Amino acid sequence: MPPAFSRDEYDARLARVRAEMERRGLDALVIGDPNNHNWLTGYDAWSFYTPQIVVVQHDVGPVWIGRKMDAGAAKLTTYLADDQVRPYPEDCVQQVGTHPMTVAGGYMAEMGLDGKTIGFEGDTYFLPYKAVISLQASLPTARWVDADLLVNWCRAVKSDAEVATMRQAARLAEGAMTTAYETVRPGLRQCDLMSAIVATQVGGTAEFGGDLTALSPLILAGEAAMTAHPMWTDEVFEVGQTVALELGGCRNRYNAGLARTIQLGRGTRELFDTARAVEEGLEAVLSVIKPGALALDTHRAWQEVLDRYGLTKDSRIGYSIGVAYGPDWGEHTISLRGGDDTVLEKNMTLHVMLGMWMDDWGMEMSETTVVTDTGVECLTRFPRAVHVID
Amino acid sequence: MPPAFSRDEYDARLARVRAEMERRGLDALVIGDPNNHNWLTGYDAWSFYTPQIVVVQHDVGPVWIGRKMDAGAAKLTTYLADDQVRPYPEDCVQQVGTHPMTVAGGYMAEMGLDGKTIGFEGDTYFLPYKAVISLQASLPTARWVDADLLVNWCRAVKSDAEVATMRQAARLAEGAMTTAYETVRPGLRQCDLMSAIVATQVGGTAEFGGDLTALSPLILAGEAAMTAHPMWTDEVFEVGQTVALELGGCRNRYNAGLARTIQLGRGTRELFDTARAVEEGLEAVLSVIKPGALALDTHRAWQEVLDRYGLTKDSRIGYSIGVAYGPDWGEHTISLRGGDDTVLEKNMTLHVMLGMWMDDWGMEMSETTVVTDTGVECLTRFPRAVHVID
Repeated sequence: MPPAFSRDEYDARLARVRAEMERRGLDALVIGDPNNHNWLTGYDAWSFYTPQIVVVQHDVGPVWIGRKMDAGAAKLTTYLADDQVRPYPEDCVQQVGTHPMTVAGGYMAEMGLDGKTIGFEGDTYFLPYKAVISLQASLPTARWVDADLLVNWCRAVKSDAEVATMRQAARLAEGAMTTAYETVRPGLRQCDLMSAIVATQVGGTAEFGGDLTALSPLILAGEAAMTAHPMWTDEVFEVGQTVALELGGCRNRYNAGLARTIQLGRGTRELFDTARAVEEGLEAVLSVIKPGALALDTHRAWQEVLDRYGLTKDSRIGYSIGVAYGPDWGEHTISLRGGDDTVLEKNMTLHVMLGMWMDDWGMEMSETTVVTDTGVECLTRFPRAVHVID
Repeated sequence: MPPAFSRDEYDARLARVRAEMERRGLDALVIGDPNNHNWLTGYDAWSFYTPQIVVVQHDVGPVWIGRKMDAGAAKLTTYLADDQVRPYPEDCVQQVGTHPMTVAGGYMAEMGLDGKTIGFEGDTYFLPYKAVISLQASLPTARWVDADLLVNWCRAVKSDAEVATMRQAARLAEGAMTTAYETVRPGLRQCDLMSAIVATQVGGTAEFGGDLTALSPLILAGEAAMTAHPMWTDEVFEVGQTVALELGGCRNRYNAGLARTIQLGRGTRELFDTARAVEEGLEAVLSVIKPGALALDTHRAWQEVLDRYGLTKDSRIGYSIGVAYGPDWGEHTISLRGGDDTVLEKNMTLHVMLGMWMDDWGMEMSETTVVTDTGVECLTRFPRAVHVID
């Protein structure tokens, strides 16, 4: 299991990170987010439930610091040399009175980083408060600078190889939705539908397999449909229910999201009217995405359609999407909403996610897209109309 | 979808947390861990990819503070009253220059908590560094005290209803392993085996469905078998491979782990010798688990067996397991290892996890157990011998 991309590609990613570090005057960068570990080094293992970091410097290669039992994964799944893999002992895992990041900070001090200017990811889940203060205590004369999302922003524009991987993820997403369309029926338990969906996501195609998506697949049916992120249950689908599905596909940890809505039996006029507005809104959004457009332009186009239909939605309508383990597949950088003046560039990948959660029902429609030379391409290709099952 | 347990049970849990807060002199407790949210309030949604907290005080009920689009989930899945659900606006989600926990801290100030002694979970992934300092900045005269794992320790001894739920999770784990035994064969892709496994985990039984486990299911085969937490690939299983599987089941977010080892074709003497030692070691561990024993007693019993066989393992041999969303199903409290002097009590649930990751192969054997009045019961029931497929 070599890294998913070429050595040249990882070198280019590292150069991009170092250039941004240079610009900000950082001697070193502490990366805690496993998504960023994967993107920068190829590291791929379900080991991030114990804290692990990658330390980037300018003049020596990135160093992975993690749990001893996971050091083998660093050697197996990355281009890092043996001296770029620094395991901490097993006995500091979940141990009272010690912290793995105290040991990691000690390693960083040995690397000569005390007294230096060190960026760190201040808002990633995987580098919690105590991890940060443990690092800081181990390098007391360093200057610590918040560099949250520095790497995430470097990830925003994908390489062609990454886009190709996301195309595969999109195939898996379409497969998952096809399975859902073919399987859902009144009387079936939600868990049985989800069983078929995850089997398709993971089994993939004859050409390639899949991973579980970073965002849990979501079924919005019954009373849960008014909420955005419900967990599936043992309840059976019922005639008359509107069922929104936020599914996706994941290939080599790259995610593509795909949301659609199914109507079991007769739907309400409100549903079909809303669906028409959302589909028109989606088209409006897609029509403005191109290099040079601003993220907020997409929201303006959407809002114009919504205004015409007298609908409201106060949450954003999309975000940058890519490599992720969970709980989120969004990159926490670009948001499609008013006020986000990010200039769109070729090979950015955006999940345009239109969720309408009403008082007692909900519907969703989404596409995973890539910005092209002149506009946008939907990576996901699947009929958009509400799918009625009689 | 009402909460999974009775109102009385949640009341008892809250009383346990408040008693510990009282003992530590805390006026309030900020809980960031979604596992703890679920345990304390029933809250159940895949919304924890944006920060959310539950604030516990002595004289008023717990307050959930989270994203506006998830407030409906709080009303649907918990016993909290409307005034115990405080949404923050959508526009502070992943927004530069603001932080949802600044808003949350403002709500806490309104609740009269500035100047008070406030405990917080300092080492949970879901309350990162910037979340903590944002809260602290919003309540500048409060005294902030690290209360990491306070709730986790309250979770260590399960109620009978929780044990019953974990029995169901164990049924799902057995089903997943049965599927693996029936499906794996040389020439099959790893992703296809995993597809069948996750379908079984989620589809569950005729009586109840399942969730995806908090720890990703793991396949250790080929060169990846020397590492502890590899991700599955598209590679096919080969004759001669030793395949270790760390699977499990999850019911209402309660996890049961189950690891076993399969040999495809002829196995080495080293494998079967190691398996014999591990099985004997497992029996030795189980023989000492009972109320009043110490966690470290289990490790001593294990080490005696390993010493006799001339084997070594420097990682812990188990941990407390229970309710979890991921990335970990362990509770980060009890570890079965030397030095952990936790006194075992009835209804503690322990995943005894014996992973032997050798130079170029690996094997695993585990049981999810519950401490009984007089000893221990394996919740998972599945043949332990290495399963040879010829």
